[in-house]
Amino acid sequence: MQPYELSLAAAADAIRARKLSPVELVDSVLDRVEKVEPHLEAYVTVTAERARQAARKAERDVAAGRPHGSLHGIPMGLKDLIDVVGAATTASSRVRTDHRAQADSTVAAGAVLVGKTHTHEFAYGLTTPQTSNAWDRDRVAGGSSGGSAVAVAAGAATFALGTDTGGSIRVPSALNGVVGLKPTYGLVPRHGVTSLSWSLDHVGPITRTVEDAALVLNALVGHDPRDPASLATSVTDYRPGAGTDLTGLRVGVPRNYYFDHVDPEVEAAVRRAIGHLEGLGARLVEVEIPMTRYIQATQWGLMVPEATAYHERTLRTVPELYQADVRILLEAGELMPAGDYLRAQRSRTLMRQAWAHLLKEADVIAAPTVPATAVKADQDTLTWPDGTVEGVSDAYVRLSAPANITGVPSLSVPAGHDTNGLPIGMQLLGRPLGEPVLLRVGHAYEQTQPAHRLATV
Amino acid sequence: MQPYELSLAAAADAIRARKLSPVELVDSVLDRVEKVEPHLEAYVTVTAERARQAARKAERDVAAGRPHGSLHGIPMGLKDLIDVVGAATTASSRVRTDHRAQADSTVAAGAVLVGKTHTHEFAYGLTTPQTSNAWDRDRVAGGSSGGSAVAVAAGAATFALGTDTGGSIRVPSALNGVVGLKPTYGLVPRHGVTSLSWSLDHVGPITRTVEDAALVLNALVGHDPRDPASLATSVTDYRPGAGTDLTGLRVGVPRNYYFDHVDPEVEAAVRRAIGHLEGLGARLVEVEIPMTRYIQATQWGLMVPEATAYHERTLRTVPELYQADVRILLEAGELMPAGDYLRAQRSRTLMRQAWAHLLKEADVIAAPTVPATAVKADQDTLTWPDGTVEGVSDAYVRLSAPANITGVPSLSVPAGHDTNGLPIGMQLLGRPLGEPVLLRVGHAYEQTQPAHRLATV
Repeated sequence: MQPYELSLAAAADAIRARKLSPVELVDSVLDRVEKVEPHLEAYVTVTAERARQAARKAERDVAAGRPHGSLHGIPMGLKDLIDVVGAATTASSRVRTDHRAQADSTVAAGAVLVGKTHTHEFAYGLTTPQTSNAWDRDRVAGGSSGGSAVAVAAGAATFALGTDTGGSIRVPSALNGVVGLKPTYGLVPRHGVTSLSWSLDHVGPITRTVEDAALVLNALVGHDPRDPASLATSVTDYRPGAGTDLTGLRVGVPRNYYFDHVDPEVEAAVRRAIGHLEGLGARLVEVEIPMTRYIQATQWGLMVPEATAYHERTLRTVPELYQADVRILLEAGELMPAGDYLRAQRSRTLMRQAWAHLLKEADVIAAPTVPATAVKADQDTLTWPDGTVEGVSDAYVRLSAPANITGVPSLSVPAGHDTNGLPIGMQLLGRPLGEPVLLRVGHAYEQTQPAHRLATV
Repeated sequence: MQPYELSLAAAADAIRARKLSPVELVDSVLDRVEKVEPHLEAYVTVTAERARQAARKAERDVAAGRPHGSLHGIPMGLKDLIDVVGAATTASSRVRTDHRAQADSTVAAGAVLVGKTHTHEFAYGLTTPQTSNAWDRDRVAGGSSGGSAVAVAAGAATFALGTDTGGSIRVPSALNGVVGLKPTYGLVPRHGVTSLSWSLDHVGPITRTVEDAALVLNALVGHDPRDPASLATSVTDYRPGAGTDLTGLRVGVPRNYYFDHVDPEVEAAVRRAIGHLEGLGARLVEVEIPMTRYIQATQWGLMVPEATAYHERTLRTVPELYQADVRILLEAGELMPAGDYLRAQRSRTLMRQAWAHLLKEADVIAAPTVPATAVKADQDTLTWPDGTVEGVSDAYVRLSAPANITGVPSLSVPAGHDTNGLPIGMQLLGRPLGEPVLLRVGHAYEQTQPAHRLATV
């Protein structure tokens, strides 16, 4: 096994035991980047020289007995929406050619930056058109954290960070067969992270195992007063225990919404995964998802005007530098009346209350992450068996948005592949600050599955 | 002294000591109502029969040794925006002719309802045109809780409740020479209270003394989950101690904003009052009010779309039933873009932070409540010495709105009369949940003044 194939946990253990040097690990990942990047284009910039320097520094620190936590010396891909000193934050946009980060955002301390990964421009989309799916170059990466998910899936980063406003961590994670965690709103501070919609934005890990997601989360959590939404929580070790017994756990299985307009192969895989949870001792309970007809209007009603407010100036000075799809959305936001935004805010308040009730009936809810696997890069719509035609982005965001509106944590885990060999994701939703439960369940589920394998580029 | 002239504290003491029967007290107040109401029109409805029945019940309870707290048997005026079972909540509007309250709002338990008092229609204005000022029938009552303040000032209620979205408790209290308290946002629940602008609305007492305001506040505070903004606070007795020594207290005196465009007689009276606080031992510190150029835009930017959202349906079905001034404001709200509302919300967040800093420099801030005394009923504008012309409503709300935006508590106390015999108000602003400090200072200040006298109708 090559170092680039190691999970974060395995690599960190090997580094700690001095069986692996950070320099070897980083070199192995950089070689892998060189090999796969021409096909995938996961990265906006690869910071190879900086990474090698950081690896040598990490190596010296380990040798001197100065380890800096679980992420020390681990190669990381960073969505190019997240500031790092000395690198541009391009947001994969021509609008940002001269943006220079003034300070590091609150990121994974000790990790080695491999490069900045592609995002759908300014995170405002679900495909990340610059990047190819790690399992099929002709298909979309998913978005908006497409570069991060593809890099992790292909071994071009040991882990990555993404952001998630409507599903942007979980959607590409599901479509590329990796683990993505959107934490509870406010748990991970967003200082130094370019905003799409501040009341819906989250930062979180993309990894190859659930345990790895927990290790990254450990490094990300912490109060930062520079993010007004940042929560003050007590220190928790999120790393899940080794046990897989889920006796006593109630898994909510939605009777509505989450299995409507879902590809039969996706549905079958997720129901099989839920069966595995039952096999581990969990009790399945049917649950009714509340207020489903308000989900789309609430998500868009909040996101559109907040995004436009952020881009107000550049939209006037350099509108031609935006991609057409993003510019149309931003300009639409200028026409939106205050009443619509208000209604979306009120609807969110009600939806949060309704979900708090729902999450008394179950400890986690299990559902598909996305209703379909990765579509071809030129495919704009999905047609459902009842004849309904749905835009690809609308479909991809449909099942992930509720966790953004309500702020509840959601973990996407790989749940097999379809007959085209494309990955399928199951999401587990939990109570606010219920990450330990999600990670325990996800980790237990993972043990029922074949070991993770890298995408075969 | 007639019973209707008694303060709430004195009346409650006399009832408890069985020197005064609730029936005598209520009869006395109802007689007073009959005498002054033709001149003042403070009430939408006087519920005389209901009040007499409640008084007899209270009398029996006292006789049987079942007293129900400080407000037991005390005659109360209720702003007609607040639901009471068995009475309409008209909001002083033709839109509300058939509105019937289904349940009592969270109101002063044990008190006897004298009647529902006039509000500027739906609380959306600062004058309450139906009602006359208690000190001069040709002048405005102030608003929007004009009926409540006039009733208390004239002895037509022992106390009253009002609501305050931009100053609607404090403005009429100042203009009628009574005490008005806008508590900390969320301290008094608003269930069953017609909303003007939910993120700025407050319920609070209007009384003739500061001690009375504390007694009413005691009865109003308490968590109610039916108001999403309701705070969960620990039980506090707000009644101020007898002492008047203010040694160690820092009174902030604004060097900007609060004394700009203020009538010289109002300024002189408030500065004299501040001098009295210094005489009681307080230390005066000059303070700079932050972000003053954003106050008006933030107040209106929040209030206008929220008010319109509340009236959305009736504005379409029965627009002709609104008064012209209110309808214009409501229709303007339909044209407001989401970006403006967003900007107001963000500005509020910054203003709250800036005020939190400000309130580290001083324990209370002392300032005029309104920049001028009551204007003639037909007067639309004020002209300041530098030639600036300002609308009466804009002027009246100018100094009270900051406490609504920031949510900090504000207590208006009478601070003498101008040469026309019209009352002047001083407001004391404090830290969130700093009501005990405000009430202590207001109560101490009151001792330096002649005893409260009723308006001479």
